[in-house]
Amino acid sequence: MPILPLDRSREPRIQHCIDQKTKPPGSLGQLEVLARQIALIQQTETPALHNPHLLVFAADHGLTAEGVSAYPASITYQMVLNFLAGGAAINVFCRQHGLNLLVCDVGVNGQFDADAGKLANFIKVKVRSGTRNMRYEPAMTLPETEAALEAGESLVNGVNHQGCNVVGFGEMGIGNTSSAALLMHWFTGLPLNQCVGRGTGVDEAGLRHKLAVLEAVAVTHAGLTDPLAILAALGGYEIAAMAGGMLQAAQLGMVVLIDGFIATAALLVAHALAPAVLDYCVFCHQSDEAGHRLMLTHLGVTPLLNLALRLGEGTGCALAYPLLQAAVAMLNDMASFDSLHA
Amino acid sequence: MPILPLDRSREPRIQHCIDQKTKPPGSLGQLEVLARQIALIQQTETPALHNPHLLVFAADHGLTAEGVSAYPASITYQMVLNFLAGGAAINVFCRQHGLNLLVCDVGVNGQFDADAGKLANFIKVKVRSGTRNMRYEPAMTLPETEAALEAGESLVNGVNHQGCNVVGFGEMGIGNTSSAALLMHWFTGLPLNQCVGRGTGVDEAGLRHKLAVLEAVAVTHAGLTDPLAILAALGGYEIAAMAGGMLQAAQLGMVVLIDGFIATAALLVAHALAPAVLDYCVFCHQSDEAGHRLMLTHLGVTPLLNLALRLGEGTGCALAYPLLQAAVAMLNDMASFDSLHA
Repeated sequence: MPILPLDRSREPRIQHCIDQKTKPPGSLGQLEVLARQIALIQQTETPALHNPHLLVFAADHGLTAEGVSAYPASITYQMVLNFLAGGAAINVFCRQHGLNLLVCDVGVNGQFDADAGKLANFIKVKVRSGTRNMRYEPAMTLPETEAALEAGESLVNGVNHQGCNVVGFGEMGIGNTSSAALLMHWFTGLPLNQCVGRGTGVDEAGLRHKLAVLEAVAVTHAGLTDPLAILAALGGYEIAAMAGGMLQAAQLGMVVLIDGFIATAALLVAHALAPAVLDYCVFCHQSDEAGHRLMLTHLGVTPLLNLALRLGEGTGCALAYPLLQAAVAMLNDMASFDSLHA
Repeated sequence: MPILPLDRSREPRIQHCIDQKTKPPGSLGQLEVLARQIALIQQTETPALHNPHLLVFAADHGLTAEGVSAYPASITYQMVLNFLAGGAAINVFCRQHGLNLLVCDVGVNGQFDADAGKLANFIKVKVRSGTRNMRYEPAMTLPETEAALEAGESLVNGVNHQGCNVVGFGEMGIGNTSSAALLMHWFTGLPLNQCVGRGTGVDEAGLRHKLAVLEAVAVTHAGLTDPLAILAALGGYEIAAMAGGMLQAAQLGMVVLIDGFIATAALLVAHALAPAVLDYCVFCHQSDEAGHRLMLTHLGVTPLLNLALRLGEGTGCALAYPLLQAAVAMLNDMASFDSLHA
């Protein structure tokens, strides 16, 4: 099924509605742009956000064997337990704003016990216990890549069936800024040294080492041009799942919340497969991870927040969500000059 | 009573608490800075925001006779009616985030009927029906200025007695970007052409005219150096009331939410009177009004949001409020590495 670009024939009516609100035209800035986009996605002057979800995909990365992260790979597993116990930043911010959080193990290196398996917000579709070391071979096979894409699609279908029309994507995976930097390099054409950053916090020497490793990976996979083959070679299961989920959400006409560096790398894949996905995306924040600003510039988009966040997990989506609610409330609840003079 | 600078002796304990949260150190960026500030204001590692209020002060400006605004002065009165009817942007955003909105007529040119007088969220402390035309004489007398400062103090005292420990300041007053630009010029030393902007939306010719008028005003009042005399000459009743309210809120140890161009001009006055007020201020957004970025730079502060808003009313405070809640929730509700390993 194709993703349809937004039907913009209704835009003048939506704009008139915004301009009639009791304020100088344009004085609510980006909130007006956001209101127009949501109204266009939903094809109505009275949009509504229903049953919002935040989907966090977790997976491990074989490349961590090369020492590209400041943290040990086992932190991925530990943080999933933290998500399930409700103690991570994304839990706190989702509770604050009434976002339903689902955590999906799509490739964590480690088995969760039976108790975790019973949690309603924990989905296990583990494709494999972590990717292969992409310095020497593709991170994922093509069937694995497709399985991860489908995991994302399926989760989005599920929440959409429950009436959800706005969904954010988050991730947890030690080593995944390396995957994201390589995907950025491939899809934007920018040199690797502009794509690589400190991730969870490597020091200067660590950053040089990370860049050297990523350059070696780039040599291993030189010449790839097919988006799925690039994703398979350089991706992670969580990145593929996010890309699949974003494509499915756009196809279903949902509002898609894009988080930081890793989530935007997933979107670069989705965008290469179906450019119209961009029409449905709200860019929630600009990450402090060095390459993210360049990614956003490449896509020609403006983020809502710029708070020097670099945590991932979908935290930028959760923190930006009240701005979407405000944009919708502006359209639905503000008086218009017409009504004031009536 | 003086405003005390924050006691920073507790800062290492607060920072340790933030760094123990389950995330890479510093990865929540500005949210961590905000959490630290609120914790320092409240002198606790477990801060809480209680009974939040947004105070909107409305007043008219005699300088509008010189044609400095894109809107007629009567809009001030109309918009107060809109606030009282619940239809303005600030009503919508306050409702969204559970902020209590109080509207204060401190100098509107026009009488509100008895029904409006009965509304619990409407406070009438009208000092005068609009300021004088400051092109020819001081906008306010010194006793009027003090009455307006006290109106703000008194309102803050009132809400503080009801348990409020976080308060935002908004305004409505056609012509007040002219006052704000002049106050900015006086208190920052920047040339007037860097302080003046389009306000509610004057065109290129209107902007040139506005600058010429403000230059004439600057000549009329040349040489003033006392902060209260400057405020009296160039201010508005709503600006004085905000300045008084900000000073009182800081004195009471409340968190003070600063909105856009006009509110920051009021803070420049407060800051000249008591520099420590700054420790209590959260800068909610950077306005699209040209001079606001320079004001924030002058104060050496970083705003939370940058959404090209230029509406006033305190809308930036209301939209940023969930970020304060998130910062507090991070401190109170996130797991720490200590507890994870316990």
